[in-house]
Amino acid sequence: MAKRLTQREHYDTLINQYDTWMFDCDGVLWRGDHLIDGALEALSILRERGKRIIFVTNNASKSRRSYKGKFDQLGVEARVEEIFGSAYASAVYISSVMKIPKDKKVYVIGMTGIEEELREEGVSFIGGTDPADNTLEPFSLANFTLDPDVSAVLCGLDVQINYTKLSKAFQYLTRNPGCQFLATNEDSTYPSADGLLPGAGAISAPLRFATEREPISIGKPAKTMLDCIQAKIHFDPKRTIMIGDRLNTDILFGHAGGLATLLVMTGITLEADITGPNASAIVPDYVTASIGDLRAVKP
Amino acid sequence: MAKRLTQREHYDTLINQYDTWMFDCDGVLWRGDHLIDGALEALSILRERGKRIIFVTNNASKSRRSYKGKFDQLGVEARVEEIFGSAYASAVYISSVMKIPKDKKVYVIGMTGIEEELREEGVSFIGGTDPADNTLEPFSLANFTLDPDVSAVLCGLDVQINYTKLSKAFQYLTRNPGCQFLATNEDSTYPSADGLLPGAGAISAPLRFATEREPISIGKPAKTMLDCIQAKIHFDPKRTIMIGDRLNTDILFGHAGGLATLLVMTGITLEADITGPNASAIVPDYVTASIGDLRAVKP
Repeated sequence: MAKRLTQREHYDTLINQYDTWMFDCDGVLWRGDHLIDGALEALSILRERGKRIIFVTNNASKSRRSYKGKFDQLGVEARVEEIFGSAYASAVYISSVMKIPKDKKVYVIGMTGIEEELREEGVSFIGGTDPADNTLEPFSLANFTLDPDVSAVLCGLDVQINYTKLSKAFQYLTRNPGCQFLATNEDSTYPSADGLLPGAGAISAPLRFATEREPISIGKPAKTMLDCIQAKIHFDPKRTIMIGDRLNTDILFGHAGGLATLLVMTGITLEADITGPNASAIVPDYVTASIGDLRAVKP
Repeated sequence: MAKRLTQREHYDTLINQYDTWMFDCDGVLWRGDHLIDGALEALSILRERGKRIIFVTNNASKSRRSYKGKFDQLGVEARVEEIFGSAYASAVYISSVMKIPKDKKVYVIGMTGIEEELREEGVSFIGGTDPADNTLEPFSLANFTLDPDVSAVLCGLDVQINYTKLSKAFQYLTRNPGCQFLATNEDSTYPSADGLLPGAGAISAPLRFATEREPISIGKPAKTMLDCIQAKIHFDPKRTIMIGDRLNTDILFGHAGGLATLLVMTGITLEADITGPNASAIVPDYVTASIGDLRAVKP
C-alpha cells in the first residue's frame, strides 16, 4: 500500500532519502499554462539541499531546447541538460542503440521536436513536417516511390496526421526488409490546456493495427527512457525517486527502473484510481496531494 | 478440413446444394479494375440455374448506388437491391436497430458512401465530407462546441482522416453520455489497385485506443451485416453459401451466420494461409482456385 505523506517529518525523511528527483512536468509542476501552487518553492527546497533534479517528459512535440522555453515562460529554473523528452530519447536510441548506418534514414510521423532532436544526433530522416506529406490530397501508391534507405519508422504525436503519412509508413513497415518500428511514447491521451485529446499512442494505433506489429516504445513507462538518462547522467536508482501524476506511465516507469515513486494528485490520477474497489494494480510508494506539499519542511 | 473442388461433379453438386450465393467482390469477381477470368460466366451459370445472387462488400466508401457503377463499368450484371455494403448496413443499423430518434444525429468519419446511405435512411449527421472537418489546420478545444444531439460516432475508411476528426469523435465518445461507437467494418488493410493500404479498422484504431472502447462493427465478419440482409431478403442459411477471398472477414462471416463457405485464391489468402504449420484456424468448407472454375459444369 502507498504511504500517505501528510506531515513535516514525512517530507523531511523523503528528502533525506533520495538524491535524484525525477519529475514528470504536466500535471505535476504545471497544468497547461498554469503553475501548480508551490511547485517553484518545492524545486527550490530540493536544489538548496543539493538534490539533482531531472525532468522526464513524454511530450515529443518539442525538442529539449524548445521545451526549455516552457520552463522559462513559467519561471521554472531548468537547464537543457536536465530535460529528457521522448523525442530526444528516441533520437539517442536510434543513433546509439540501434546504431543506424549513416546512409540510412528514418521515416518520421511527428512534429518539429522530433526533427530537431534527430538532426542534433546526426540522424537522416524524411517525412515529418515536409509539406509533401502534410496534405489531404488523395494518396496513390502509383505515384509513390519506396525509399530503400528507410530502415525505421518513428511515430510520435502528430496533429497533422493524415492518410498519406499513414500509407507511407505502412509501406516502409511492410515492404522494407528489417524496417524497425519505433514510437516516441504510447500515451493514449494528451492533456491540452482545454481538455484531453488523442495522444501519441492514438497516432501510432493505425500502424499497429494495419501491420500487426508492436513498436519499440521509447518514452515512459519503457525502460529505454531511463537507459537514455543513465547514459548521460550518473544516478543510483536506490537513491532516486520518480514523481508523477499518471500510474501507467510515471509510476510504472519508476517501478520498471527500480526507483522509488511518488504520486501527486494534481493531474490525471483521481482518488478513485488508487483506493476502493476499482483501484489500479499499479501502486506508488508514496502519495501526496501536490508537489507543493514539500513546503511543509520550511520553518 | 476444407474440401478441394477440382472436378466437374464437385461444382455440379455445389450448385445443386445452394440456392443463395453471397459474393464478396474485390478479390473474388475482380481485382482493382480487372475482372477475374471467368467471373462473368460463373455468375451467368448461377443465374441461368435460378440461383439468388447477393453481393456483400465491406467497402463503405461508396453507396450501393455508386458501387453499382463499378459493376456496370466491368460489365457485371447486378441490381442495386442485390448489393449490400457496410455503409448501407450501418445506416440501416442506426435507423432500424439503434432506432436513433429523429432529433439526434451521427458524427461521421468517412466518405460520401456513408453520407448517401445515411441520407437515404433519413438519419441526420455531421462531420463526414464537411469542409470544416477536412482540414489540417490546428484543432483547438477552445474553439469547439460539443453538439449534445450527437448520439453516435460512425467510423469507416476515410482517406481524409485528420486530427480534427479524431479529436471531435473523441470528445463525443468520452463526453456525450450514451454516445454509441460504430464502425462500418474493421478490415486492417484495403486492397487498392496498386497494393495494400491501411483499411477502415486502421482509421478507427486511434479512437479505440484513446477511448478504450470497442465499436460495434457492422461489416463482415459481424453478424450485423447478415441481419441487415435478412431484413430485406429471405434466404435459408442452410441453402446459402458465402464466397470470399479473406478468411477473417468473408469465411468467418459465413461461419457466424451458419452459411456454407467457399474460399477462392484470387485475392488476399495464400496457399500457406490454409495449409502447413502456419495455417489459419479459420477453415472454409470448400476451396477452389478461382470463381471461374464454376465454368467446368458447362458442356
